[in-house]
Amino acid sequence: MAGDPVWLAAVSLLSAFQQCHFAWLVGKSRVKHKVMPPAVTGAPEFDRTFRAQQNGVEFYPVFLTLLWTAGCFFNEELASFLGVLYVFARYKYFHGYVQTGKGRLTGFYLTLIILMCLITLGAAGIVNSFLDKYFDFSIMKKLHKLL
Amino acid sequence: MAGDPVWLAAVSLLSAFQQCHFAWLVGKSRVKHKVMPPAVTGAPEFDRTFRAQQNGVEFYPVFLTLLWTAGCFFNEELASFLGVLYVFARYKYFHGYVQTGKGRLTGFYLTLIILMCLITLGAAGIVNSFLDKYFDFSIMKKLHKLL
Amino acid sequence: MAGDPVWLAAVSLLSAFQQCHFAWLVGKSRVKHKVMPPAVTGAPEFDRTFRAQQNGVEFYPVFLTLLWTAGCFFNEELASFLGVLYVFARYKYFHGYVQTGKGRLTGFYLTLIILMCLITLGAAGIVNSFLDKYFDFSIMKKLHKLL
Repeated sequence: MAGDPVWLAAVSLLSAFQQCHFAWLVGKSRVKHKVMPPAVTGAPEFDRTFRAQQNGVEFYPVFLTLLWTAGCFFNEELASFLGVLYVFARYKYFHGYVQTGKGRLTGFYLTLIILMCLITLGAAGIVNSFLDKYFDFSIMKKLHKLL
Repeated sequence: MAGDPVWLAAVSLLSAFQQCHFAWLVGKSRVKHKVMPPAVTGAPEFDRTFRAQQNGVEFYPVFLTLLWTAGCFFNEELASFLGVLYVFARYKYFHGYVQTGKGRLTGFYLTLIILMCLITLGAAGIVNSFLDKYFDFSIMKKLHKLL
Repeated sequence: MAGDPVWLAAVSLLSAFQQCHFAWLVGKSRVKHKVMPPAVTGAPEFDRTFRAQQNGVEFYPVFLTLLWTAGCFFNEELASFLGVLYVFARYKYFHGYVQTGKGRLTGFYLTLIILMCLITLGAAGIVNSFLDKYFDFSIMKKLHKLL
């Protein structure tokens, strides 16, 4: 790809900031419900807050991998747009989960859909790169010529 | 390095997909053993399934860092091959751990060996790059000339 | 940026090695306090050791994202220096936390300050790249000309 992937970097920075923000909200919930480290359970609201953040942590490297694969091998702008959507879905997930266990579901399904889109784009881009590298056959270049 | 590291990207995508698959298996185990979020303990089988996935989560960013360092600074094909082995070792670890606590050990030692190989390759590649950058002395270039 | 970012790669490798080291110390603490997997609670010292490692795991992908963003879009040497400081802060955090709950605080505040510096550098670098890309106006290039 040409030039620095500044959109991907911007979305990555935004999502990293969001992760820090969630960790900070867990800290606030610790104070509110008097759950002192190293304890990770206490009031039900704290448990949900903690799990909401942990789920974000679990998926964060997966998200970054898919974002950059889709962005570098398929299309940077499209991947970045999905990345911003993912940050929004995580926001929905976190704040929904803090309120009730069921409240996480909207955000949860949204993150799943976005991750599946990114996997598909990434896989398509990589298959195209392999075809281009070993068989000198690039579907994307042919599409670019046609359009 | 020349060209896009498509092998490293392919292995990264594969491993990200595996992480999603493990998370999905934890979800299935939640339903089977009736462990509703935010709870993370319940039946012993669920506990092992959850910990197997968590251990994968802990090491995932470490694995990606070592894979890309070894791949970009030493040799892409060799690092990618070790990456595929790592995905296999994680598979062994997860499914062994779900069955019994001891069942995780084969996969566990295998992941350790692979991570140590990747650290060694990455460190060798980085030392070589430093020598090349500051002393204009590259062992790899000399080896390439000899062979 | 010109050339392979070998300093960023070296710091990433060092921090990955540190993460493995922490995981190994948790294993040693498991043996010492007889906490067999999949259990993650037991003696208070084990609980603190485990949480110290887990906190490192949570922030590791965030750290890597900020390190590379600041390094690629602002300045590689400065970001790498902050990265080495972060590894030191994590060392302080981990070993302080193993001893007492309050012992983690020095390292904790240090990691926060470093992450905030990296976010600021990364954001500045990305804003500059956007200005350069879309308005052909680069503050950094102007500064380089002046100095």
